[in-house]
Amino acid sequence: MLQVALLGCGRIGRMHAEFVHAHRRARLAWAFDVHRPAAEAVAAATGARVAKEVDEVLADQAVGAALIATSTDTHVDLITRCARAGKAVFCEKPIDLDIRKVDACWAAVGNLGVPIQIGFNRRFDPSFASLARRCREGEIGEIRQVLITSRDPDIPSDDYMKVAGGLLRDMTIHDLDMARFLLPEEPVAVFATAAALIDERVRRLGEHDTAVVVLTTESGKQAVITNYRRAVYGYDQRIEVVGEKGMLKAENRHPTTVELWTAERTRARDPVLHFFIERYREAYAAELDAFVGAVLDGEPVPVSFADGRAALRLADAAYQSLATGRMVRLD
Amino acid sequence: MLQVALLGCGRIGRMHAEFVHAHRRARLAWAFDVHRPAAEAVAAATGARVAKEVDEVLADQAVGAALIATSTDTHVDLITRCARAGKAVFCEKPIDLDIRKVDACWAAVGNLGVPIQIGFNRRFDPSFASLARRCREGEIGEIRQVLITSRDPDIPSDDYMKVAGGLLRDMTIHDLDMARFLLPEEPVAVFATAAALIDERVRRLGEHDTAVVVLTTESGKQAVITNYRRAVYGYDQRIEVVGEKGMLKAENRHPTTVELWTAERTRARDPVLHFFIERYREAYAAELDAFVGAVLDGEPVPVSFADGRAALRLADAAYQSLATGRMVRLD
Amino acid sequence: MLQVALLGCGRIGRMHAEFVHAHRRARLAWAFDVHRPAAEAVAAATGARVAKEVDEVLADQAVGAALIATSTDTHVDLITRCARAGKAVFCEKPIDLDIRKVDACWAAVGNLGVPIQIGFNRRFDPSFASLARRCREGEIGEIRQVLITSRDPDIPSDDYMKVAGGLLRDMTIHDLDMARFLLPEEPVAVFATAAALIDERVRRLGEHDTAVVVLTTESGKQAVITNYRRAVYGYDQRIEVVGEKGMLKAENRHPTTVELWTAERTRARDPVLHFFIERYREAYAAELDAFVGAVLDGEPVPVSFADGRAALRLADAAYQSLATGRMVRLD
Amino acid sequence: MLQVALLGCGRIGRMHAEFVHAHRRARLAWAFDVHRPAAEAVAAATGARVAKEVDEVLADQAVGAALIATSTDTHVDLITRCARAGKAVFCEKPIDLDIRKVDACWAAVGNLGVPIQIGFNRRFDPSFASLARRCREGEIGEIRQVLITSRDPDIPSDDYMKVAGGLLRDMTIHDLDMARFLLPEEPVAVFATAAALIDERVRRLGEHDTAVVVLTTESGKQAVITNYRRAVYGYDQRIEVVGEKGMLKAENRHPTTVELWTAERTRARDPVLHFFIERYREAYAAELDAFVGAVLDGEPVPVSFADGRAALRLADAAYQSLATGRMVRLD
Repeated sequence: MLQVALLGCGRIGRMHAEFVHAHRRARLAWAFDVHRPAAEAVAAATGARVAKEVDEVLADQAVGAALIATSTDTHVDLITRCARAGKAVFCEKPIDLDIRKVDACWAAVGNLGVPIQIGFNRRFDPSFASLARRCREGEIGEIRQVLITSRDPDIPSDDYMKVAGGLLRDMTIHDLDMARFLLPEEPVAVFATAAALIDERVRRLGEHDTAVVVLTTESGKQAVITNYRRAVYGYDQRIEVVGEKGMLKAENRHPTTVELWTAERTRARDPVLHFFIERYREAYAAELDAFVGAVLDGEPVPVSFADGRAALRLADAAYQSLATGRMVRLD
Repeated sequence: MLQVALLGCGRIGRMHAEFVHAHRRARLAWAFDVHRPAAEAVAAATGARVAKEVDEVLADQAVGAALIATSTDTHVDLITRCARAGKAVFCEKPIDLDIRKVDACWAAVGNLGVPIQIGFNRRFDPSFASLARRCREGEIGEIRQVLITSRDPDIPSDDYMKVAGGLLRDMTIHDLDMARFLLPEEPVAVFATAAALIDERVRRLGEHDTAVVVLTTESGKQAVITNYRRAVYGYDQRIEVVGEKGMLKAENRHPTTVELWTAERTRARDPVLHFFIERYREAYAAELDAFVGAVLDGEPVPVSFADGRAALRLADAAYQSLATGRMVRLD
Repeated sequence: MLQVALLGCGRIGRMHAEFVHAHRRARLAWAFDVHRPAAEAVAAATGARVAKEVDEVLADQAVGAALIATSTDTHVDLITRCARAGKAVFCEKPIDLDIRKVDACWAAVGNLGVPIQIGFNRRFDPSFASLARRCREGEIGEIRQVLITSRDPDIPSDDYMKVAGGLLRDMTIHDLDMARFLLPEEPVAVFATAAALIDERVRRLGEHDTAVVVLTTESGKQAVITNYRRAVYGYDQRIEVVGEKGMLKAENRHPTTVELWTAERTRARDPVLHFFIERYREAYAAELDAFVGAVLDGEPVPVSFADGRAALRLADAAYQSLATGRMVRLD
Repeated sequence: MLQVALLGCGRIGRMHAEFVHAHRRARLAWAFDVHRPAAEAVAAATGARVAKEVDEVLADQAVGAALIATSTDTHVDLITRCARAGKAVFCEKPIDLDIRKVDACWAAVGNLGVPIQIGFNRRFDPSFASLARRCREGEIGEIRQVLITSRDPDIPSDDYMKVAGGLLRDMTIHDLDMARFLLPEEPVAVFATAAALIDERVRRLGEHDTAVVVLTTESGKQAVITNYRRAVYGYDQRIEVVGEKGMLKAENRHPTTVELWTAERTRARDPVLHFFIERYREAYAAELDAFVGAVLDGEPVPVSFADGRAALRLADAAYQSLATGRMVRLD
């Protein structure tokens, strides 16, 4: 039984708490949040204790793992402290928005031998995971092109955008990880183009809401990511992989299978599942299950600190491409 | 090259004329219609001659085949005269509404050795034909249940309904033929229930617009036909066959593949192809091609007089079931 | 907080236990099974106490509801005892296989004012529930025809079939309830045909594996149920409702959205969810939630004892139709 | 009635001849091919005369239009000669592989006032045309991103590739035209990446078989083209347009609507229509119809010489991007 401390009890944190609570090999021991009522709500629902400060949690020898769901700017510090306290770490993405801080963090914790898993939840979506496994098992032979469609249902608040590190580090980073997950080789070059087309708010912040990112590998394999930030029909999340022997696609998910046929429209279905909490619910449960299993059974975690760094590195290169109009080669 | 005489130049006749004209092994030699301008229009478009009377056509030794697309009440007489004149016959369904006349017709022409094909065009629909072939090739093993969905886009005029022989002889007869085409054994019993639910007009005529017909074979295999006469989303024509190793389905056809995704609806497509002229265009061309080939190459026609009789016999039994509330066994 | 006693800890019982345990307004207080280790396993997973006998549970004043998931032949006795002890009752379908016992049970408990909900779980399937709601809200106008496809993935064991009351009382009964749920009026007549086509085992038991049941209402509205007991591609559960303004359909559910496109096949998806435990998982949780809410809030239960009786009455009539070849009118 | 001369009687030419022959406002007057038997075959099937040389055709005052379906290297010369002879011109794409020759051609014929239509047939595909019309009618509001999937079923012969001008001028050029057709503004910048991943033959020729092309407009709208040259499941031709109020998609076309459901796969359909002759048959007929109508009715042709030039200009820019790794701005 893995005793888990939750650091950060916002929306994502609460969802993680629910999954820890329901997990047959894990127990939520502590809940911490700078906003104490948030931690208390989690504690009430799960039987966890409320921690006054992080050190209280770290001092508890019974705690085997910390689940970090605080704001991004605290991740590196918390990863470092938890790892030094010998706690296995599950940290929400991104590790940090500044790759130098990420590297400094790794310099501090990389040799401690503590499991650190980064929250790229989409790898655990049943459809995407099945698609990836089937690619790896050779069902469509050699992979040549990966197409990732990723559209949010709406533009975040200005406050959110101001601290999120930009579209490519906040939203696209998931797709960059997915491209790495699906491509049979590491990407070596990045091209990006992006614009603010949807809302004047975005333009005023110097931000983007519509983007294309192209990755290529050494042998010329390609991944194409298209992003858009106001898909009025719901959270549009699709993958298509083209290979030697055919294509594998993963389509969107709808709340029901009901179709309406009328004089105006046929086969009409409801909007797709609204956003990440709905769409990736099973994925969040599965990534936690994988983390708990890896920690308890001494297996490597399925999404490593290096994976978290690599996605950020690609996002940085994409911004470099935006600035220069060039395809940017990674060193 | 088969010289064809068209008898009846209404909507269906004109379409047949077009396909004869375009066929590389056939030529439209004559067009006849009691309404002469209709024949003249066909002649103008195809180079056929206008016949003043049917006998003029029958006397032309060069004519190898007659295509009968006149009103139903003339079919039996024309089949008999054409067959006696040695012309191969293609006759629109139904042969007649009265099975005694059908039997009398066969008594007169059955031993003349003239090819007679009945216009059950749906057997030639590319999707239904493919499904039937795959069933016969054993792709889903032994067939156990056949489900036929058949819905018209709207209720015909009162004038049409008054002479059409009733829903089950006019509309369902196509589905009864399809059931025979797909079942691995002949149906031996028929159950039907029907109602007038859609339009007061239908009720006033003592007619039906919504029906279920169930057929069973000696070994217990089942076919289910559901009919409805005002599918506002278009002509709904689907088949589903359940067998030992799985299911084969043929779905509806849409004018385009375009999907609309909005805040209200996703995957929404246009209404399906409106009615038989649009939906079964390829089927009409293919049944003519099969007829021309059979006649010129001396092969049996793919839909025989006996097939035409059998479907009517089933429709009659269905009416008997309606009247008695019993499953009616065919002799 | 509703304290619930689980009677019967087999496969279905264990699943109910899980949902009671997770419910925020319910607590599993007792687990009982004639096979004690089954009850102990449930108790271990949920913190419930193991009851040595049913009376121990009934005597506990804190218990507000009994969840009956024992074998069918015990339902009537347990419903009666629980209701007399003042416990709200949730009972798995069917109430009994013998309508006289059902009526006797109701004579005993009908005036006690105790909530009794029958486990027709499919009404709570998100897709079917959505379809039913949209029908009721008039989205397709007046309902004319309901088509229910219901195919099991495989034939049960001989032991199961011997006590299950026959295909129409065991499997079709769910579809009969669904037809009643969707039709805007009560069915007044029933036709059925059935055969043993799939497996010699079925024939030897005098049972059926392939069936068609047709229901009609007073005004002529129709429901068609087609059953088949070895759909090799998975548990096939679909509904189609045809109405004045169009059609509403609910399609099957697949484990993932992945499609395979190869030189042989395109758009190919995995088999559908295997059987009721997978397909109706959300439905089981939702029916429990509705029951808990109804009991605690003093609302009527959504599926009543009368609903349980009505479905059995239709199944009995269907067997009468099988025996006579007639459409059987309900009194 | 427009009298048409066909120049070039290869595969595409023969198909055009068939559509001219069937057109109610056009007649095929002449067929010419450097390989005379090809012209004779067309003549036999349509009643056209065989021309010994092009000048014979140009001298015929009755000829109103020339349909140029010869090899690409002859297009510019034939356009020029036909236009100077006062014949309306329909010319297969591309105008030429060398933009200087294209410009010289325009210098020669641009002010003659002769209708010249270029054969970008895909604009006339019923699904793509419907999608484009609906975009223009504002059904999804302002357009932000256009995604074009375009995959050939297989790699052409070495001989073909040697003269085709490269993947981007031969295959992608259709998609570049489609991007222009769908984007609400002209593209002003082009990025491309391409590789030879499928077949060693392609690499040996210095050619590509897998590519991504990104276009942007002045306001930042984006089009993404993905190409692949061995889609084993058939000719994959799809479009997706993302806009303010939703998305419009056009999907692939299959020969039938049949689905196979087995223990291994469900919803499995046949491969998609094999290649352009099958997939774009209706489009070829419709572009001819549009040409005939424009010429006879004195309307502007729907795809102009300038459109032909613009697509080539984009392909050239894409090659420049390939060479430099930069996004290339058009002047």
